Amino acid sequence: MNTRLIRYLPILSWGRHYTRSDLGNDLTAAFIVTIMLIPQSLAYALLAGLPAEAGLYASIVPIMLYAVFGTSRSLAVGPVAVVSLMTAAALSNIVEQGTMGYAVAALSLAGLSGVILVAMGLFRLGFVANFLSHPVIAGFITASGIIIAASQLKHILGISAEGHNLAELVVSLGRNLGGINWITALIGVLATGFLFWVRKGLKPVLTKLGLGAGLTGFLVKLGPIVVVVATTAAVWYWGLDARGVKIVGAVPQSLPPFTLPSFSPALLQQLLLPAFLISIIGFVESISVAQTLAAKKRQRIDPDQELIGLGVANIGASLTGGFPVTGGFSRSVVNFDAGAATPAAGAFTAVGLAIAALALTPLIYFLPTATLAATIIVAVLSLVDFSILKRSWAYNRGDFAAVATTILLTLALGVEAGISAGVLLSVLLHLYRSSKPHIAEVGQMPGTEHFRNILRHKVITHPSIVTLRVDESLYFANARYLEDRIQARVAGDKEVRHVILQCSAINEIDFSALESLEAINDRLREMDVKLHLSEVKGPVMDRLAEQHFLDQLTGRVFLSQYEAVQGVLA
Amino acid sequence: MNTRLIRYLPILSWGRHYTRSDLGNDLTAAFIVTIMLIPQSLAYALLAGLPAEAGLYASIVPIMLYAVFGTSRSLAVGPVAVVSLMTAAALSNIVEQGTMGYAVAALSLAGLSGVILVAMGLFRLGFVANFLSHPVIAGFITASGIIIAASQLKHILGISAEGHNLAELVVSLGRNLGGINWITALIGVLATGFLFWVRKGLKPVLTKLGLGAGLTGFLVKLGPIVVVVATTAAVWYWGLDARGVKIVGAVPQSLPPFTLPSFSPALLQQLLLPAFLISIIGFVESISVAQTLAAKKRQRIDPDQELIGLGVANIGASLTGGFPVTGGFSRSVVNFDAGAATPAAGAFTAVGLAIAALALTPLIYFLPTATLAATIIVAVLSLVDFSILKRSWAYNRGDFAAVATTILLTLALGVEAGISAGVLLSVLLHLYRSSKPHIAEVGQMPGTEHFRNILRHKVITHPSIVTLRVDESLYFANARYLEDRIQARVAGDKEVRHVILQCSAINEIDFSALESLEAINDRLREMDVKLHLSEVKGPVMDRLAEQHFLDQLTGRVFLSQYEAVQGVLA
Repeated sequence: MNTRLIRYLPILSWGRHYTRSDLGNDLTAAFIVTIMLIPQSLAYALLAGLPAEAGLYASIVPIMLYAVFGTSRSLAVGPVAVVSLMTAAALSNIVEQGTMGYAVAALSLAGLSGVILVAMGLFRLGFVANFLSHPVIAGFITASGIIIAASQLKHILGISAEGHNLAELVVSLGRNLGGINWITALIGVLATGFLFWVRKGLKPVLTKLGLGAGLTGFLVKLGPIVVVVATTAAVWYWGLDARGVKIVGAVPQSLPPFTLPSFSPALLQQLLLPAFLISIIGFVESISVAQTLAAKKRQRIDPDQELIGLGVANIGASLTGGFPVTGGFSRSVVNFDAGAATPAAGAFTAVGLAIAALALTPLIYFLPTATLAATIIVAVLSLVDFSILKRSWAYNRGDFAAVATTILLTLALGVEAGISAGVLLSVLLHLYRSSKPHIAEVGQMPGTEHFRNILRHKVITHPSIVTLRVDESLYFANARYLEDRIQARVAGDKEVRHVILQCSAINEIDFSALESLEAINDRLREMDVKLHLSEVKGPVMDRLAEQHFLDQLTGRVFLSQYEAVQGVLA
Repeated sequence: MNTRLIRYLPILSWGRHYTRSDLGNDLTAAFIVTIMLIPQSLAYALLAGLPAEAGLYASIVPIMLYAVFGTSRSLAVGPVAVVSLMTAAALSNIVEQGTMGYAVAALSLAGLSGVILVAMGLFRLGFVANFLSHPVIAGFITASGIIIAASQLKHILGISAEGHNLAELVVSLGRNLGGINWITALIGVLATGFLFWVRKGLKPVLTKLGLGAGLTGFLVKLGPIVVVVATTAAVWYWGLDARGVKIVGAVPQSLPPFTLPSFSPALLQQLLLPAFLISIIGFVESISVAQTLAAKKRQRIDPDQELIGLGVANIGASLTGGFPVTGGFSRSVVNFDAGAATPAAGAFTAVGLAIAALALTPLIYFLPTATLAATIIVAVLSLVDFSILKRSWAYNRGDFAAVATTILLTLALGVEAGISAGVLLSVLLHLYRSSKPHIAEVGQMPGTEHFRNILRHKVITHPSIVTLRVDESLYFANARYLEDRIQARVAGDKEVRHVILQCSAINEIDFSALESLEAINDRLREMDVKLHLSEVKGPVMDRLAEQHFLDQLTGRVFLSQYEAVQGVLA
């Protein structure tokens, strides 16, 4: 079969070998994931500022499309916490929450994000995601988790509060604290407590009771459904909605509707940066889950095709009443653990959620939003992990600065400013680090042909020779630094007649660095000092040989540093 | 003497050893530079959109302050073409040219730029200038030269035209071409032609006549003064100003006045980015001239102190009726060639110009602006050098792209957009390049302990071992690429039991890369494959040893690749 077609439609590869045993495994996994996803997808719609049904819609068509275009066998695509938060942050700046325009803008955001992802996949631009360093992502996720949890407190307490960063949220909550609805607060606190207990306390109990790991895991996953059923029943039985407990209310009984996003240029322009950030964050979250799970079965993930898969899923979300989606960590792990063999498990999950959207929505009329908020809080607090601060501090102060800045700015200014500052800072830190590369002056270790740092070892040197070893590729950001260093070293020492650059650690020399080498060569010539090179790597030498630099070089090029010193002294 | 004081006040160092012979040399150089600077400084004021006297003022106090704070013995500080163009571009967006607000905004721009430079010097942030790669600067200077020349055509032709990029200028010139003042055009064309001839044609003639090199050089430098005198006399004698020839007009006879820039926060905010760009461009231009000249006398330039020197010079310009200044290429070379021994030459030049400002300004009343425009055009066309396109193309397509983009965007959109795009593009290109590092799978050369690329050499490999050599430091932008490559290589080959990373070219591993190595180790463990490291550099090993990574590593760390293969097979 056409390999190009298989690259773009991975379903053609696994679909041909689909077995009855795969079917059984996929159906089981789909059942478990569906049960987990019903409360989760409602909750994330709430987080994104959308009506509850949008969460179900966003979990149906996108997951089916990903099954066709994605390369991971286990990834479950749908609304996730951080992306939902970013969606709310992006849209609230532009349109008022709860309006029709808000829902349409959500469709546009998903569509735009989808187009960006597909384009990045087709042009193989996945490397852009690499600019998000691990520390920045870890800091961002932690800070987002805190903001999300804080943003849900209003639902737990039954008050209103606004804000897209921690300060705004805390101030707003504090101001409205007088209006607490105590029944809502009781439901919220009990639900949150119960869910925490299910996570931390129930598992050991069940295991002690002698239940198998599989059954234990399944029962723990039922926790959210139990809370949903219990609190819904309570509101319905005691008529608590009449006493001020906010409920989900009427949800249309419907399959995902066909929707069209707005193509207003002004709107799209405002959404462009948020859509880009959502795409990148979503992709990074998704690909790392996908690769971790694929490794367990020695399967391969194609990052560029993943971009296409996620992009098509988002375009699907924008056409079926959804909002931005990506591969989620917890649901994918559940899917994998439940034995999902192929992406068909995702398709079956979609069928399960479609049935829920058609048949079960009347049952959640009385579901309190406080319960959904409790689900979110318990889910996101597992994202909060301050240990990254300690670990990065131990490893490298620069990385620590990137984490700390990302966390602080995300908390203080919101998600977009936080992630942008984090990326900018890590790029600047990288440039700064490589702009002052380690340059050692070296001499010969007595009795050997090895050359070592004169500051660390007792080595043999010659007053007329300065040998510098640059431990970094030469490029524009550090080329001028080398000029400065050489000029500073030679200008003050009238005995120097030869400068040897030991190039063993130089993997590349860009055009700027070539011009700097020419400048160094010219300036040394003015001082009557010769410039020599030693241990130049093959590809670097090939490049240099094409240019006039080697003709102009006042000195010579030596294969080894030892030969260089011998040759110069001879 | 206090070394800290000497660092910040280099005059304390050279001033103590000042000799009578230095005085003679400095006075001669100052005389020649003064003659050269009078027309040039008037012209650059015109280019910056300011009254002619601003050019003189900007050449007096700044050069004296630089003499106190700067480290170059030969640098001549004052208005230069590119910075004047950037000044005009920055100010015209904010205030109307010719108004009082415009001149005040110019003072603010110089002051802001001065503060930025001093701050960068005190905090040793000179490395920021390194992000301007050679190709980007070369492209920018070339494009700026073209824009400057085009912007002066209106003065040559005696028409009006507006615009800060080539397209705007050409359209505007074309529209007004009907209004040519033919007398102005005659003066302009003759002056331009004469100046070109002085540059290219006069020198050989004089040399043939047997004049010495020094006298020839001096006579050639008199060219602009000759044109100024001749055209001024012509306008005065024939009363051409009454026939539409634009003249400089009344210039106050005065020493530089004491002025205060505007501190309006709104204005300063609008000027911040332009001031930053002007500071960086000015610094880069200045430092490369300074270093080239210093090398000829084996002197040392301190880049951080240079920032302070230029910064104080600009603050001086803002307090004495000037505009942004920097070290100029041509005047510094003239200063050096004329024998300037110390920065005192600059101070004497300032005295010369102060005398000119006091005594000679009535003489330039009838000086036609077309003559000044001719001076500018001839000066800047020497900046235009398209050979950078050819040279960078030959060396590296990425560098070529950076040059071409910078030239095109500067011409099309103006100086600020051009330089910003160039910097952004070269940073992105660098990140892109290092995000896909060269990773070679290597095998043992028969009969040796060397390991080479399996694609290039006939080498010995073992089906259970994959050895990868990464030719780049590992950091966030390429860490995930390594994950992808290893996963892709191992997932498809069931025989692999060991992956060895040959780390001989890895100069650094940042925190992101460490986390990636942990992920690789974990994923390989899932596939029942061990990860080993070989030839890890000392500092990298020190870092790794502080972390838990080495404890978790499924395989071992070997001193050499040869030992690694032996150890794994044993």
